[in-house]
Amino acid sequence: MSSPFRGLSAFPLTPLRDDRVDEAAFAGLVERAAAAGVDSITALGSTGSYAYLDADERARVARIAVAHAGETPVLVGVAALRTSHVLRHVAAAEDAGAAGVLLAPMTYQPLTDDDVFELFRTVAERTELPIIVYDNPGTTRFPFTPELYARIAALPGIASIKIPGVPTEPFAARAHVAAIRGVIPPHVTIGVSGDAFAAEGLLAGCDAWYSVIAGTLPDPALRITRAAQSDDADAARAESVRLEPLWCLFAAHGGSIRVVAAIAEQLGLGPPNCLPLPIRGLTAEARAEVARVVQELDLR
Amino acid sequence: MSSPFRGLSAFPLTPLRDDRVDEAAFAGLVERAAAAGVDSITALGSTGSYAYLDADERARVARIAVAHAGETPVLVGVAALRTSHVLRHVAAAEDAGAAGVLLAPMTYQPLTDDDVFELFRTVAERTELPIIVYDNPGTTRFPFTPELYARIAALPGIASIKIPGVPTEPFAARAHVAAIRGVIPPHVTIGVSGDAFAAEGLLAGCDAWYSVIAGTLPDPALRITRAAQSDDADAARAESVRLEPLWCLFAAHGGSIRVVAAIAEQLGLGPPNCLPLPIRGLTAEARAEVARVVQELDLR
Repeated sequence: MSSPFRGLSAFPLTPLRDDRVDEAAFAGLVERAAAAGVDSITALGSTGSYAYLDADERARVARIAVAHAGETPVLVGVAALRTSHVLRHVAAAEDAGAAGVLLAPMTYQPLTDDDVFELFRTVAERTELPIIVYDNPGTTRFPFTPELYARIAALPGIASIKIPGVPTEPFAARAHVAAIRGVIPPHVTIGVSGDAFAAEGLLAGCDAWYSVIAGTLPDPALRITRAAQSDDADAARAESVRLEPLWCLFAAHGGSIRVVAAIAEQLGLGPPNCLPLPIRGLTAEARAEVARVVQELDLR
Repeated sequence: MSSPFRGLSAFPLTPLRDDRVDEAAFAGLVERAAAAGVDSITALGSTGSYAYLDADERARVARIAVAHAGETPVLVGVAALRTSHVLRHVAAAEDAGAAGVLLAPMTYQPLTDDDVFELFRTVAERTELPIIVYDNPGTTRFPFTPELYARIAALPGIASIKIPGVPTEPFAARAHVAAIRGVIPPHVTIGVSGDAFAAEGLLAGCDAWYSVIAGTLPDPALRITRAAQSDDADAARAESVRLEPLWCLFAAHGGSIRVVAAIAEQLGLGPPNCLPLPIRGLTAEARAEVARVVQELDLR
């Protein structure tokens, strides 16, 4: 069970200060997640702004993550619009000592299923590192199908699929996860993302939670994960329900990244306005609301 | 009327060969469009794969375009996911001798209207070059509103707005263009894109056609443009109707880029498989269909 593709993976922000990576703040987030006891750390996920950083910045961030994660395995996001750039990021992840890579089919021109399959095939051929298939239609706008999951998961080297949020109704969630499980090999884990769906996802049979909040707030994410892993559905759901004001903030601000950046700033874990422009931080009013929720939920 | 933001702007491919820019093929496309008499050439548009090229490749492509365009003004696409990268591409366009820049709000994380406004404000503050606002929701997934057109068009330095296809019904097309015209300053031109909509767009009052096919097949694009500019609606529509098999191929293949790449290859204007992976070229079957259409329509 001690696999980086099971349990809780924390996705830290890559905070910027004056348009440069704030390496100390990033190292601090990595150390914080590792110290809390997450099962893996995924550097350069969507929350880690991989899509906005250049190759040198990404290579450096991967190295910092491994250097500060201690014994905790580090996974590294390697996606890019162009296949040759992906391969460059994969090589950098290998050099950094990553335990695996996370690969999303980034799009500018819409891609076909065959394009995406060939992308994964090419990467799988070129690295020994296990690969997480990153299905995140909110950022990539690429719609995976169960058929494509099956084709890609059958490639050697595929370790896990990171799926978007599951249905909120428990029976529907279980059916959804079972349907994916039914078309992929047993060794390929399924990880839920969309933090609001994590408790239901884990209870529905997901092996992992690829978690935004664990990158900044590992403790509540660990409470949900460990409860679900102990089949304590009530405790897992109770903690997720307790965090509902946070999920509402995510929904109100078009996703988690701006809210999590505001939380990190609020807790002194990152500099102000730490997201890459043109992504502006929340307004003063929204930040005040975030601060109120952080205090009310005793997030730290 | 001799403005790069009026009439026909040709958007050439940036053909790749073995994952490197085929500079001779690109220069050939630029020379071909200039010789045909287009009003401007836009290097590094979506069709020119700007989103897939690194900063050095883009700077080099901009310089080649200006060097081979003769007297024809060259516009250069400068978009990137990160504002600081956009500014780097703007500086390279200035150095190359561009007559203007084309800026799309590329997205990975969804952007707000304020994010996009601030992006344009920042770029407009940093360059003397006129700016085309590039509204291409099929690739950027950013939905412009008339309100945002108005806010951005009021910035100093904004020269034009490149809009997606207009309604196909002439009265509706005219109303659509008039509605945009009504909220932007008179000096800001409106250019239609989506080649199938160009004839109706120009006849409905668009000042320019930002044209994919003109980058590879300037002659038919010029016939449509010059007819529309002479108020010869019948001739403009007749040529667009004649090209209907081409528009059908665009629709069948999820957009124009793969079809235009196949046409360029078919006509010997670019190497085989000239698009950046993971974008694969058309299948052999689809290429045969493209070849048939090229022959039937006497495209060259």
